[in-house]
Amino acid sequence: MSLLSSLFGKKETSASVARDRLKLVLAHERASNALPYMEEMKAEIMDVIKKYTKVKEIHISSQNNQNIDVLEMEIILK
Amino acid sequence: MSLLSSLFGKKETSASVARDRLKLVLAHERASNALPYMEEMKAEIMDVIKKYTKVKEIHISSQNNQNIDVLEMEIILK
Repeated sequence: MSLLSSLFGKKETSASVARDRLKLVLAHERASNALPYMEEMKAEIMDVIKKYTKVKEIHISSQNNQNIDVLEMEIILK
Repeated sequence: MSLLSSLFGKKETSASVARDRLKLVLAHERASNALPYMEEMKAEIMDVIKKYTKVKEIHISSQNNQNIDVLEMEIILK
């Protein structure tokens, strides 16, 4: 359950949050160098999401910790 | 950091894990019903990943907790 709790913060069980949200997390743990195609692949995944969803707000963040790169994308749907 | 720790388990800082892994988590918190396009969108995102990566192993799991649907996809890269 720890992954689930951390995905949308601690409010996930609250009935007060009445909206549709989509969260995509793409993490890459690399043994050596970054993959050359990562940026292109990320962009293409985002295109798929934008094609299907009606986006009201979008928050994108990325972080890098030791050998893990993480892209988080939170979309508030209309 | 809690999201990061839960993404790859507790071994993320260990030097003993020397492989490339990609993890995709797609979570949908819904106010009411499931979105009609979710399955199709998931499949298309998977297609993008398969197009770019050389997959050695792939583990897919999905869970449903209250009003949150989560798809987790872990890919061990060649």
